[in-house]
Amino acid sequence: MTDQSKFLPQGFRAAAVACGVKRDPSLLDLTMIVSDRPASAAGVFTQNRVAAAPVQVSRTRVPAAAVRAIVANSGNANACTGDGGLADARRMAELAAARVGCPPEAVLVCSTGVIGQRLPMANIERGIAHAAQNLAAEPATLEQAARGIMTTDTVHKMTTRTAELAGRTVRLAGVAKGAAMIGPNMATMLAFLLTDAAVACDALQDVLRRAVDESFNMIGVEGHTSTNDTVLALANGAAGATIAGEELAAFGRLATDVCTELAQAIVADGEGAKHLITIEVEGLRTRAEARAVAKAVADSPLVKTAIYGADPNWGRIVSAAGYCGVDFAERNLSLWLNGTLLYDHGAPAAFDAAAVSRRLRDQRDVHMRLKFDLGPAACRFWTCDMTEQYIKLNADYHT
Amino acid sequence: MTDQSKFLPQGFRAAAVACGVKRDPSLLDLTMIVSDRPASAAGVFTQNRVAAAPVQVSRTRVPAAAVRAIVANSGNANACTGDGGLADARRMAELAAARVGCPPEAVLVCSTGVIGQRLPMANIERGIAHAAQNLAAEPATLEQAARGIMTTDTVHKMTTRTAELAGRTVRLAGVAKGAAMIGPNMATMLAFLLTDAAVACDALQDVLRRAVDESFNMIGVEGHTSTNDTVLALANGAAGATIAGEELAAFGRLATDVCTELAQAIVADGEGAKHLITIEVEGLRTRAEARAVAKAVADSPLVKTAIYGADPNWGRIVSAAGYCGVDFAERNLSLWLNGTLLYDHGAPAAFDAAAVSRRLRDQRDVHMRLKFDLGPAACRFWTCDMTEQYIKLNADYHT
Repeated sequence: MTDQSKFLPQGFRAAAVACGVKRDPSLLDLTMIVSDRPASAAGVFTQNRVAAAPVQVSRTRVPAAAVRAIVANSGNANACTGDGGLADARRMAELAAARVGCPPEAVLVCSTGVIGQRLPMANIERGIAHAAQNLAAEPATLEQAARGIMTTDTVHKMTTRTAELAGRTVRLAGVAKGAAMIGPNMATMLAFLLTDAAVACDALQDVLRRAVDESFNMIGVEGHTSTNDTVLALANGAAGATIAGEELAAFGRLATDVCTELAQAIVADGEGAKHLITIEVEGLRTRAEARAVAKAVADSPLVKTAIYGADPNWGRIVSAAGYCGVDFAERNLSLWLNGTLLYDHGAPAAFDAAAVSRRLRDQRDVHMRLKFDLGPAACRFWTCDMTEQYIKLNADYHT
Repeated sequence: MTDQSKFLPQGFRAAAVACGVKRDPSLLDLTMIVSDRPASAAGVFTQNRVAAAPVQVSRTRVPAAAVRAIVANSGNANACTGDGGLADARRMAELAAARVGCPPEAVLVCSTGVIGQRLPMANIERGIAHAAQNLAAEPATLEQAARGIMTTDTVHKMTTRTAELAGRTVRLAGVAKGAAMIGPNMATMLAFLLTDAAVACDALQDVLRRAVDESFNMIGVEGHTSTNDTVLALANGAAGATIAGEELAAFGRLATDVCTELAQAIVADGEGAKHLITIEVEGLRTRAEARAVAKAVADSPLVKTAIYGADPNWGRIVSAAGYCGVDFAERNLSLWLNGTLLYDHGAPAAFDAAAVSRRLRDQRDVHMRLKFDLGPAACRFWTCDMTEQYIKLNADYHT
């Protein structure tokens, strides 16, 4: 990563302030990101039937051609808060819009944190005013924007890319937060992608949906889908490059790349995790089948504890594949762990268990490959192991 | 439970021996149950695509009109063992059949334990010979039969019922094992129901399927379906009572009752568990919807760790319901925990959190009630909490 990583793409400013939504008054808990000009905007949201108020508000506002700002708080999810919460989310956007000087509909709103408590609106109002001042005086770095949305994250998550597209240098920056699908009741995975390329909002929505499908939809910490998951993309065109036609594919790869790096960072920061596990599944009839296998393996506490225990326990992996609803016979499946063949067309393979265990113990990265012989479809999925620390974090936290 | 619980129903004998399948030579690891006369038999088996060899053998043999014996070993699951394992499972039934004096097809076979290792057939052969001697000399109690199938179980699981049916006293006894859907790679939940009533095998199969659907299919420790799950029922008619017509319903309730008690005993013995959690879901359009909600709540590590931490964290429960695929709006749902209303038609209810937490801490039994207003369907589901001990047991165990 270069020095540029400190900076937002052209025409974006950000501010992150501490306004007392979190109990610790020294922690940043409100981020504003503003585009100086109207930006195309796209969004992908949680599929949970219990969707937080800001999700209900923001998802009606994208795709859109002229969005000016994102306002996001951490520490309170504004979820399960009824009509009052919905009014709060709308008000949060209005307050930001008044400072930016744009219609309320041109502001997207996000929240992450505790479920079931009303937002402290006086703090939010103070925070937005303070952030607006900072935007004018000393715009924040990308890192501060990333820190403003952290909850149980132990590290902030951000990445940037530059590319030559449409004859110009365009930049794409991404920030994200998340340490569990729901952390210790501190809900949510949030991510914001910002680019100074110009991309029509429908094309941007398409790019974002594909990128999310390969990245944030392919991770799991414990399989518990949050009420607040939101990924937003803003493209403001400040770089003077309009991405359309064939160059959309290249831009799409860039966006997928950024989303994948952020998604991996979320899993690597999974609560209490000691290992980042990459699961590659190949040779199934459809990608949905491949994903079902990967997700069943990733979500199994028995697989996750085996990796934590450095145990090459292929039986747990194979049997998780067996109950995910995908039709196969044992002979259709072979399994490699960190490059070692453990299970060969339905039969145990001979392998040096001590060596495989040692490698699991010594390396943070774990690679599982499940190879079927039933078709051309494949996928990659990321998860983490499960440790006593995960239990402790989630049992000791109190609402 | 009365003194009768020591005894099997009329016309059944059992033996349990230690034959060295388990590493500790003092532990029982082979159980034989023999009916003196041909018995109706029924069975329900794992839905895992990776089904152990004994499952593949036994499921072709039921329902049947003339079964004489069940032979089951613990310590080795005979799963993922290919054609050799299939031959071993058939051989195990043959060896038992030779001792009993019946065709091999009249013997049902089960295994539970480590996945992916071939059965030590010399030990199994010795064990069956020894068990057959004991059957003649000093038949085992129900408790010994239950102990012979234990793996990571901390207690044996058994129960009995008597009822007046068809003008006679009939007895129904059940034994089970299981401490996780898969324990530390010691696969499986097994249960055997034995009755001295006469029930035609098709009727028995129907009774068993309904009973399993209300009991063993309504429990989860961590949601990982085993390769070896098997529930068998034998009805030998030794009591002289033939159950048919309207009395089948009463017999079915008896069987459901026995299965439910055994299922709860499995969950209560869940690895590392401190709480037995009963989840009641009501007011949905179909029972399948009610079960999907209950299972999502039961399988969520965030719900399970909250209960362990004595935290009345209704947000985790409500959001788990939200991602299970069942269509509802927040206002359709209310939630009670141990009788206290926490969430009322989509909005947080006011409650004494300290009192609810204290009760969670002090009581082993936890009751969750999720009430929807969308229809007449309901279900009950049982699970346990998740503790550091679960992680420890499953991480420290090595294949």
